[in-house]
Amino acid sequence: MQISRRGQIDPFLVMEVMRAADARAATGADVLHLEVGQPSTQAPASVLRAAHVALDADKLGYTDAFGLPELREALAGHYKATYGVTVDPGRICLTVGSSGGFLLAFLAAFDAGARVALASPGYPAYRNILSALGIEVVEILTGPESGFHPTVEQLSAVQPLDGVIVASPANPTGTVLSREALGALLSWCRNHGVRLVSDEIYHGLTYTGAATCALELPESGGERAIIVNSFSKYFSMTGWRLGWLILPEDLVRSVECLAQNFFISAPTLAQRAALGAFEAGEELEANRQRYARNRAILLEELPKAGFTHFAPADGAFYLYADVGHLTNDSVAFCQKILMETGVAITPGVDFDPQRGSRTVRFSFAGSEEAMRESARRLIDWSQRS
Amino acid sequence: MQISRRGQIDPFLVMEVMRAADARAATGADVLHLEVGQPSTQAPASVLRAAHVALDADKLGYTDAFGLPELREALAGHYKATYGVTVDPGRICLTVGSSGGFLLAFLAAFDAGARVALASPGYPAYRNILSALGIEVVEILTGPESGFHPTVEQLSAVQPLDGVIVASPANPTGTVLSREALGALLSWCRNHGVRLVSDEIYHGLTYTGAATCALELPESGGERAIIVNSFSKYFSMTGWRLGWLILPEDLVRSVECLAQNFFISAPTLAQRAALGAFEAGEELEANRQRYARNRAILLEELPKAGFTHFAPADGAFYLYADVGHLTNDSVAFCQKILMETGVAITPGVDFDPQRGSRTVRFSFAGSEEAMRESARRLIDWSQRS
Repeated sequence: MQISRRGQIDPFLVMEVMRAADARAATGADVLHLEVGQPSTQAPASVLRAAHVALDADKLGYTDAFGLPELREALAGHYKATYGVTVDPGRICLTVGSSGGFLLAFLAAFDAGARVALASPGYPAYRNILSALGIEVVEILTGPESGFHPTVEQLSAVQPLDGVIVASPANPTGTVLSREALGALLSWCRNHGVRLVSDEIYHGLTYTGAATCALELPESGGERAIIVNSFSKYFSMTGWRLGWLILPEDLVRSVECLAQNFFISAPTLAQRAALGAFEAGEELEANRQRYARNRAILLEELPKAGFTHFAPADGAFYLYADVGHLTNDSVAFCQKILMETGVAITPGVDFDPQRGSRTVRFSFAGSEEAMRESARRLIDWSQRS
Repeated sequence: MQISRRGQIDPFLVMEVMRAADARAATGADVLHLEVGQPSTQAPASVLRAAHVALDADKLGYTDAFGLPELREALAGHYKATYGVTVDPGRICLTVGSSGGFLLAFLAAFDAGARVALASPGYPAYRNILSALGIEVVEILTGPESGFHPTVEQLSAVQPLDGVIVASPANPTGTVLSREALGALLSWCRNHGVRLVSDEIYHGLTYTGAATCALELPESGGERAIIVNSFSKYFSMTGWRLGWLILPEDLVRSVECLAQNFFISAPTLAQRAALGAFEAGEELEANRQRYARNRAILLEELPKAGFTHFAPADGAFYLYADVGHLTNDSVAFCQKILMETGVAITPGVDFDPQRGSRTVRFSFAGSEEAMRESARRLIDWSQRS
């Protein structure tokens, strides 16, 4: 009996690192989790309250494939309040996390054999989902000179393309596309008939100025982009598995049929609870300020442990460090650090198959104390090593 | 800019019927929902209690890609208690509904171009998911002579095959495969190197004897089957989006990598809540008894309205009726019934593209009173028409 070739995708290594860290913690060892890509906080209190109420009052059956109409209205209101843009709720599809959104968007927009460009380093699931769906992944090697984002020159050099994925703020680098750079990419895509997928999952988590939503740039064709977002990061609701797409008109019907068949609907309790998310502004801003303090701590302390080359971490909750002067095997390097200090960090090979053996990612989504203690241990370790 | 060809799948018509019924109900009209494929009950009290506790006590972050270890253990215990079989929890993967399980199973087992056979009539999402993934759907026209299940003779006639999907109890017919028939299909699949996917989502909801789990038939190769199941139906948790796979050993690693990338993990609150599901036996048995009464009411009353040809509804909560003597356009027929009586039922075209214009599906998942009232209205309508 066969196993499919397309099912042989790479593991999502961050998850394996988490498991190694958990296994170590299970032995009673003290582990500091700077490897996880998720907030250390619960969902906001208003979300938890809404969830308790829904548990008692709602049957929690299936919803429409696109989600609860009132939540789609609330999201449209969020776009008006946050970006000043008007979004037809009919274009908003609630999804099973941004993960479910990617599946629907990729299936609706790209046939097998299509060519889709993305930045390396980047979120590994893009690459793995695309390749499992028979889509050719065109990796664009990016560096600090473009803020680790692809440029129109790079895209032109790898034509023909059917799609481009951009992420701002990006994982693992935290870098943010300027309004001008995003506009240039959108215009190029419009002019070349290329579908732009804008991953905006880390919007709201920025430290040097807000990130631009593609919808803010209608003059560059932002309305034609597929926007992917989620309640996981800014709204601190990872395990609830609730995201959304904002779709260009021409994909709405196709995504609706795909969503009906592939998911039926997104988790109903999460949808009911998320109705409480938009009144949590203060609590979410407090989370963001904690991340900002954590970021400052790491940027101040990690250089004392020999980590001196960082991508400009303008958003998300990651520091991406070049450790080429310390190792050429980031997997072994991270294992050694975990074993000798109890600090879990992620090797870069997940994000950049070609060059990630010389990079690591620190997540600063944890507590301030965890950042301070991690820095202390790493400084001490670097002096011992 | 292109729209993909593979994204152009059929809508899941049941969902559209639900929307038409909801639209009618929103006008103030009284609608009886015999179209929905979901329990009319909330999740069991023990599940709701566990959810309240988890909301207060748990961070509800991501879980392992395969799910909470304690829930996988509990499911293994469920198989021991229900079927007397021992299942390694390492082979159990919690999924985003059975929908998410199908995606993972199909991707792991079948490449694009593979040929997978399934019964017609059948659950439409099988066909639509498979075709969106580039898998060739081989429809086997089934009828009452085989309980609407494919036979080994039919499978032999459409070789070469890479996979077969069987569902018992089946949607829309409610028919159950006998132990012998399932064993024969399993043996044939083993002998021909064909992967059998056993959809057991309606297990526990049977009225004339329990359904057989493929794992009960190791002598026929049951361990090589992919088992798909869910908390949606028997456990009355549709909107929670939580299902599971039991995988043959050779697919475990591939499905794990796919799950990490396509889903990260199944909804955490649903997983925590589902830990309460296994102590809900009495409440779930009361649900089943209500379905049994509903089934008896419809089987008694519907013939008086002219519905006289039913598949043997031994399980699930559906009656599948041949209405060829009443109409040759089941979509128009169902619309007419909805408009003139307020009873929503589903036309068969969703389940059987070739012959479904002469069939309809009644769901008896609702209340006893809804069954009685629906029968009354349909009898009255048939006498007026």
